[in-house]
Amino acid sequence: MEPLIVIDGEVGGLLDARDRGLAYGHGVFETMKLVAGQLPLWRYHEARLIQGLTTLGIPWDPVAVNSTLVKLLSLCSDRGVVKLTVTAGVSGRGYTIPDSLTPTIIAQCLPPAPSQQTLRLQISDYRLPLNPVLAGLKHLNRLDQVMASRNVAAGFLPLLLDAQDRVVEALSHNIFVYHGGRWLTPDLLSCGVAGVMRALLLKEVFPAVGLDAEVCTLDIDSLRGADELFVCNSIMGVQSVSEVADLNTYRKGRATELIRRQLARMYPCFSV
Amino acid sequence: MEPLIVIDGEVGGLLDARDRGLAYGHGVFETMKLVAGQLPLWRYHEARLIQGLTTLGIPWDPVAVNSTLVKLLSLCSDRGVVKLTVTAGVSGRGYTIPDSLTPTIIAQCLPPAPSQQTLRLQISDYRLPLNPVLAGLKHLNRLDQVMASRNVAAGFLPLLLDAQDRVVEALSHNIFVYHGGRWLTPDLLSCGVAGVMRALLLKEVFPAVGLDAEVCTLDIDSLRGADELFVCNSIMGVQSVSEVADLNTYRKGRATELIRRQLARMYPCFSV
Repeated sequence: MEPLIVIDGEVGGLLDARDRGLAYGHGVFETMKLVAGQLPLWRYHEARLIQGLTTLGIPWDPVAVNSTLVKLLSLCSDRGVVKLTVTAGVSGRGYTIPDSLTPTIIAQCLPPAPSQQTLRLQISDYRLPLNPVLAGLKHLNRLDQVMASRNVAAGFLPLLLDAQDRVVEALSHNIFVYHGGRWLTPDLLSCGVAGVMRALLLKEVFPAVGLDAEVCTLDIDSLRGADELFVCNSIMGVQSVSEVADLNTYRKGRATELIRRQLARMYPCFSV
Repeated sequence: MEPLIVIDGEVGGLLDARDRGLAYGHGVFETMKLVAGQLPLWRYHEARLIQGLTTLGIPWDPVAVNSTLVKLLSLCSDRGVVKLTVTAGVSGRGYTIPDSLTPTIIAQCLPPAPSQQTLRLQISDYRLPLNPVLAGLKHLNRLDQVMASRNVAAGFLPLLLDAQDRVVEALSHNIFVYHGGRWLTPDLLSCGVAGVMRALLLKEVFPAVGLDAEVCTLDIDSLRGADELFVCNSIMGVQSVSEVADLNTYRKGRATELIRRQLARMYPCFSV
């Protein structure tokens, strides 16, 4: 089945091959949960989108983005996943950002992600390069994730370390570690994508249950000694991790359940 | 004027928006000098293309690439620049490389690059992240180059250092330094693009004049103390550098002229 795609307000999935999104990955994207025809985490996605576009020197055009999303939502089914991509648009040859850019806005409707069981992780051999300028952004330069997903056993989600062997993320998920009675999550100051669900948990869910999670550097030993682990993203919510291959196994514990239940209470679309 | 573009053997510049080249930058490209309807450096470009595709897990299909290039060359003017992009093609959501890929092959004809005077460089504030797995390849994740081209004064070409302040390249050029009677060029083991002209100079031109260039790490002090500098790429050939802003100025010297003249002798398309 052909997916529904809207580009710059018009239905159709064909893009100008000269787009800087293709040439250089000069753009950002968001993958968003669609529930009852709405994007419940839109304000978080929008905030990250604006931050990414600003860093990459691409103008933010809320009217154009809105009209493309409205068009898509008027035509697609009322639940699933919406992928929104905003690029720097078409330009001539050369890396230098032209004075005048007309961004390309691409919105695509995808079926709901299959719900998954508890996850198992495996440490990828590929190390994320350190890049403090682009760290946290969901830009279109994602070869790191493509490379990191290779050579991981079937049924395992890659766990990504950085060039200094610090824990960063689990491919398309952020990671939270329950260790010695405290929740910890990597700071993502040097690499990784700062996920929307991570932001929401830190800002709304942990405080709502009277906890906070420490945003810090996290080494493998913290993971080895952890009592519980979960990963999260804006599509799947909170998912327990039962194992990091060759490192440790984890119980599906009460600390994770408390966070997951509170998320479901505040955002019912994440009730299982 | 609309440029001539051929995609997968068909004339037309529209691409499926689900292409992994756009989604993740999962692909490589070559920018090639077109002279008298030929691509004189094709065997170098082809070698780098194959190396990049292999690293990125994309099948190399010489028949498909050839037929797209032949189609383009049959329609475009007989001199200028040909840009060839090969991506991993369309896939569903997710970073993981599907078992079966159908690469997308995009060839585009561009006008000849304007010939430039001696160049002036300015050190960019942006530092290239270290990535030994992808170093040297001309892949589509080029946000580093886009970011490095910002905040450089008009008329200057950005000089790129890595995260450890070593000299890497000059945006879309490699760099050669004449220092204490020896030619030096960065090893590009941790970052940077290993240019086709750099390979050709090292393999053919330096040996033809009885010299060799040392491929090594290069710090700012080597640049400060250099007698001559040149940058090179497969479109412009060898270009003298007269200045690195706030560092030093350089004469247009005999050592560079020897290399430039030998290149023009072996590849007449690079005679000025």
